[in-house]
Parts: sequence; C-alpha cells; structure tokens
Amino acid sequence: MTTDHYGAFIDESLTVEPQKGGILHRKTFAVKDVFHIEGHRNTAGNPHWLQSHAPAKATAPALVHLLQAGATLKGTTVTDEMMYSLHGENVHYGTPVNPFDKSLIPGGSSSGSAVATGAGLRDFAIGTDTGGSVRIPASYCGLFGFRPSHGKVSLEGVIPLADSFDTVGWFTRNAALLEDVGEVLIGDSMPDAPDFKRAVIARDAFSLLTDTQHNALMSAVRSCSSKVKSHEEQRITNDDLGDWVDIFRVIQGYEIWLNHGEWVKAHEPDFGPGIRERFHMAEQIKEADVAEARRRQLMIQDATADIMQPDTLMIIPTIAGEPPAVGLPPEEVDKIRQRTMKLTAIAGLNGLPQVTIPVKRGGGLPPLAISILAPKGRDRDLLSFVTSLCD
Amino acid sequence: MTTDHYGAFIDESLTVEPQKGGILHRKTFAVKDVFHIEGHRNTAGNPHWLQSHAPAKATAPALVHLLQAGATLKGTTVTDEMMYSLHGENVHYGTPVNPFDKSLIPGGSSSGSAVATGAGLRDFAIGTDTGGSVRIPASYCGLFGFRPSHGKVSLEGVIPLADSFDTVGWFTRNAALLEDVGEVLIGDSMPDAPDFKRAVIARDAFSLLTDTQHNALMSAVRSCSSKVKSHEEQRITNDDLGDWVDIFRVIQGYEIWLNHGEWVKAHEPDFGPGIRERFHMAEQIKEADVAEARRRQLMIQDATADIMQPDTLMIIPTIAGEPPAVGLPPEEVDKIRQRTMKLTAIAGLNGLPQVTIPVKRGGGLPPLAISILAPKGRDRDLLSFVTSLCD
Repeated sequence: MTTDHYGAFIDESLTVEPQKGGILHRKTFAVKDVFHIEGHRNTAGNPHWLQSHAPAKATAPALVHLLQAGATLKGTTVTDEMMYSLHGENVHYGTPVNPFDKSLIPGGSSSGSAVATGAGLRDFAIGTDTGGSVRIPASYCGLFGFRPSHGKVSLEGVIPLADSFDTVGWFTRNAALLEDVGEVLIGDSMPDAPDFKRAVIARDAFSLLTDTQHNALMSAVRSCSSKVKSHEEQRITNDDLGDWVDIFRVIQGYEIWLNHGEWVKAHEPDFGPGIRERFHMAEQIKEADVAEARRRQLMIQDATADIMQPDTLMIIPTIAGEPPAVGLPPEEVDKIRQRTMKLTAIAGLNGLPQVTIPVKRGGGLPPLAISILAPKGRDRDLLSFVTSLCD
Repeated sequence: MTTDHYGAFIDESLTVEPQKGGILHRKTFAVKDVFHIEGHRNTAGNPHWLQSHAPAKATAPALVHLLQAGATLKGTTVTDEMMYSLHGENVHYGTPVNPFDKSLIPGGSSSGSAVATGAGLRDFAIGTDTGGSVRIPASYCGLFGFRPSHGKVSLEGVIPLADSFDTVGWFTRNAALLEDVGEVLIGDSMPDAPDFKRAVIARDAFSLLTDTQHNALMSAVRSCSSKVKSHEEQRITNDDLGDWVDIFRVIQGYEIWLNHGEWVKAHEPDFGPGIRERFHMAEQIKEADVAEARRRQLMIQDATADIMQPDTLMIIPTIAGEPPAVGLPPEEVDKIRQRTMKLTAIAGLNGLPQVTIPVKRGGGLPPLAISILAPKGRDRDLLSFVTSLCD
C-alpha cells in the first residue's frame, strides 16, 4: 500500500538502517534513484535502464557516510530520465507533485528528492546536480538546496551524467540540517581560511529578473550582504551569460554521450519528449567544438577567480523567473531551461559551491530563491554562513 | 540582560560547548544547580550553600557524557532548597513559572529544569530525583520525565541528598529525546532481556484518584496496556502505601542529616518554610528507627520483585491529584506531599526506573500524567517502549 500521495518515490519502502549513532540520529532521508544501494536496481528515470542493469554490488560511499552518522535511508525517488532535464516531468514514472502548488512543476532532475523533502515525508533527501538538478527543484519547492564544490563529495557508485560538472547535492527545510549533512559528507572546513568579508551582488544575474521578482529578493539580499563588511553590485563577466550556457551545454552533451551513447545505441530506449532531442543533439557534438568550449571554460574560471577572492561571496538569484506550470509545450520548456541555465552555469563552469535559500512571498505566490556562492573548497564555511544567516 | 521571563535559571548564560558531535547534536540543555561544573559555584537552592562552598574542580561525569554526545550546556536552574521539597517554591531564588498555568506551582525540587524544558527554552534539562523531584515537576508542567534505576547513572559530582534514593533524572517534551538522553547516560540495553509482555495496573495506586482524574487517565492506560500481550489490574502491596511513605521518609531523613547535618549546624543557614521543619525532623531520627525501616524496605523489595518479573511493566498515576496552586499554606503543602509520595515511593523504595508521560486534558484543565515502571536495570528497554508508545 502506498502512502506516497506526492508521487515522489520509485521505491517508497526500501529501508537501510543507520550503522551507528551520530549527528544525523533519528533523521530519515530519501535518495534519487541514481545512487547504488547494495542489492537494489536503479531506474535512472527510465525503464530500459532498469531492465538492462544488474543490482548494485555495493552502496555508494556518500550514502554510507550518512548511515554511519545515524541517518536512516528510506526510499528511492523519481528522477528525470537519465538526469537530463531541469523540469521534473517523467513520462514513465510520473511528475512528483510540487508540495507548494500542484499546478507547478517540481523542477528536476532530482524531482522526487525535492518533493519528499518539501512535503515533509523525509527530513532531507539526496540528489545530484550537474546543470542545476538540485538547485532548480529546491527553488521551485521552497527548499534549501546545496551543490558542493566540484569534486568535494565522492561520486563513486553514482550513475554519471557529465563528469566535468556532476556533483552530489541535498535538500532540507532548514539551514542547520543543510549544514549538518555537509559536515557528514564533506568533513572539516579548510584550516586558516579567512572570514567572509565581501559580497559581490551579480548585476548581470539579477538583470534577468522582472522588477517584481527583483523587489521580492531585495530584503534577502540585504540581510545577506549586511553580514559581511562590504558589498558591491557588479557584473561578474563581460560575456553574455547566454554564451556561458552554450559552453556548458557543449561540454555537458559531449560527456553525456561519452557516458551513455553506447547504451543508447545498443538499447534504443524509449525516451520522453525533450530527452530524446537532447541525446540526439549530444551525439552530434564534435571534438573540436568541445576543445574550444574547454578553452573558453578555463578563461571563465580565471576571470571568476579574480572576483572570488578567498573572503568573497557571490549573490545571485537561483532562477530567472517563476516556477513554470505543469504540462507546458517542449519549446516553452526549452526556453525556460535556457534562461535558468544562465544562472546555474555560473557555479557549474567554475566548480563553485552554491546554496539556494528559499524566499517566501505572500498572496499565494510561489517561492523564489536567492543563492550564495563561495570560493571553491569553502563549502563548510558557506554552509555555516547560511545557518547563521537563516536560523 | 535576562531573557528568562520564567525565572527558571540561576545562571542563564553559563555555557559549556559540546566536546564532539553525536546523537544530541544541536540540542541544548539546562542543569539543576546541584551538578558540579568546572569553575562554577553551586547554590543547591540556598545562598548560604553558595557562600560556603568553593567552585567545582571538575564537571560531573553525567554532564560530560552529554557534552561528548554533541549537546550544549546552557544555564543552571533553580532548585528547591537543598533539594528537600517536591513543590518548586524557593524563598531565596523565586518560584519558576509553570509554563502551562502561572497560577500553579511548577513542582520541585528540579523546578527550574522542568520550567526551562516546558517553556521551550531548552531541548531538555537535567535534574535529580530522590523522592520525586523529576517525576513531580514533569507531571505538573506536562512533560516527559525519567527517573533511572537506582545506581544506573553516575552521581559523581552531584550534591547528595539521600544516598539510598538519589538518582539523576531528565525532562523532555517528547519521548524520542527522553530515550536519546538515556542512550547517552545509560549506554546499551541489557543483552538477552525478554520483550515486555505483561502490564500490571496498580489498583491501590489508582484508588488514590478521584473518578474524574481516573477517567482522564484511562485512555492512556489502555493504549499502554494494549502494547503488551496481557494486562491485569491488581494491588501491588497489601500494605497501606502510606506506610511506604513513612519508611521512605525515615531512611531519607536520616541520610540527609548524615550528608548535611554538620553543615547545617555549622552555618545555621536561613531556610524557608517547610525546609526548616524537615531538617529539624531529620535531625531527630534514631538509628533504631532507620534499622527497622531498612528491614521493612527489604521486605517490600522482595514482594515487589515477585510482581515485577523481567517481562513485566507497572502502570501507576504519577501524581494523586491536581497540580496545586502557588502560595498554599505549609500544612496544605505537606498534605499534598504526603499523598504524592505514596506514588513516588514505589520506584524509590524498589530502585525501579520510571517514566512519567503527560496526559493532556481539554478545557484549560492542567495536565495529568501516568507512569510506567520497569524491572530494575531495564531502563533502556523502558525508554524505547515509551517512544514506540508515544511517538
């Protein structure tokens, strides 16, 4: 019998007990169905994947760390097909219901993890974030979400998407627990790092918002920037952020095809709308284009490093617009995806840690969100900064 | 500047940070001002005690265990003078305000610890329970409270009252945290102990209630007894429970004078009403009377052990009546104390662990409480039973 009225789960009852007590004692968590759990077969959001893969021989180390800190794993969650979407609609396994407003999509690809957390079914949930797959659903569902520095949390035992950008991320309803999961998965903070003293409010990122959205975020931005000594509004790049999206998509698509092209060709899986087209696009990407994109990425990283000094935080909106309605036509979905990725590509291309913080609005309006980014590797200090800001 | 509008604290700001992470991570607790904290001077509820004692050289091991499990010690709390009362009124340090209804006493002697928990100022609080000093204030303030098996939690670094009955106890607002504190202070449960299969509903204990009070507790008693295979109503002794109180008071008074008589004679401290008379009574107790009381206690323990088989729980009301009003005359207070101790002496004389569980009533009526007692040493299993019953 299912109690999953939100359609968040692939297997609601799969349970792994904690291995000992720790700071996540009595906390329950759900896991995006792309993490290996000993004896469990993943779907990766596609029934052909499920049919063509054996049960996992070992549990992903990231999950083991959580079990060793006292948390109980309860349930695997729906993901967009092959994690290759930011929308949260899955033609095979259904669209998890956005707990804030069922007429809105939950966001993806870690859709079920966001919904399990947002609906209060679990204390926290684990997802993956390559192009925004934790940050977007967190913001659509009114949650705290974290994407760590690239390489900071082990991806062993996690079905890959695009290795240059893949990360393990998580969702919570409060900042303290977001930090606690970070303590378990990331360990100690960097020794001798300076306090954050400076906040850069990314003018080119905020310019993607309407005035109404901009105004809705201003008090959150002010309370954040008032916690540091100085803050300034400035462009974070002379490029158009749309160019960053193109660079990101070329590298991402190429790596996705590297990881999954052979399987796609061998099994010709039945993909839903959008996913099919994206895999087709990925197959066409040429090595020369990837080489050029990687060169541009290095230049971007150099320029961003100049801004992101060790004591500096960056503030951006998490999404450029309102959470979209369920069932939009594919071309509309793609337009939203393109706009959203102008913001998510910032952490993506630069490998930076990013926390998204929900900003509630009155009058039944869906939540918006701001994000704080920190220099690479300062994950623990960023999470602790957000706890002191929000709790 | 004080934020302690409930008058729960002696020193609200005294803080000891956790020594590492653990299952009490992010939990805060307050401590009855009879526990040694390195560098801190205890009051034991009396200003003469404070003046005549040096700061503690070490922190009580029970507190150290909590700090090592991730909890933060925040504040020392008001206690009845010399812990020698069940009422919660202290002429020197004030009467902590019962968070349920300020016209009612909070109960004592761990009054401030109960109020700090009940008012939500701390997640849990530590007290001591000799004759009911955790169980009574827990029930008056609508809280979960625990008195462990005698000898189960270290009393090192705790100002003694009466060695035969002294225990360290604690208050929480929910059963899970009551159990978690038990896991930290008591350690693992006994190996190979049977499940609880039988509940004894103590008829002679329930007969102390009015019909209205009795009816208010019945649904809680039923939900408890339905969790075990069989239950029966029976007298737990052929004695009058009033005799048990007399036996308890003789041994308690004698030991209190052994512990503190010399100090009382040397300092002639200024005691409030009730306390003064009780110390005077304690001074008069003769060795022959104590020997006789101890003989009777052993007989009681034998008879109770026949009832409390390893698989058996006992259910009693925690208090015999309503939480009393603030400022009653001393002779009225003594009458209530005498009646209440008929129930608290059961665990006291037999060294049994006891959990008190709040029973809320509608219509602005103060909470009542039932208690579950287990065989000596089965503290962890009792706490886990209560969690499965209440959470």
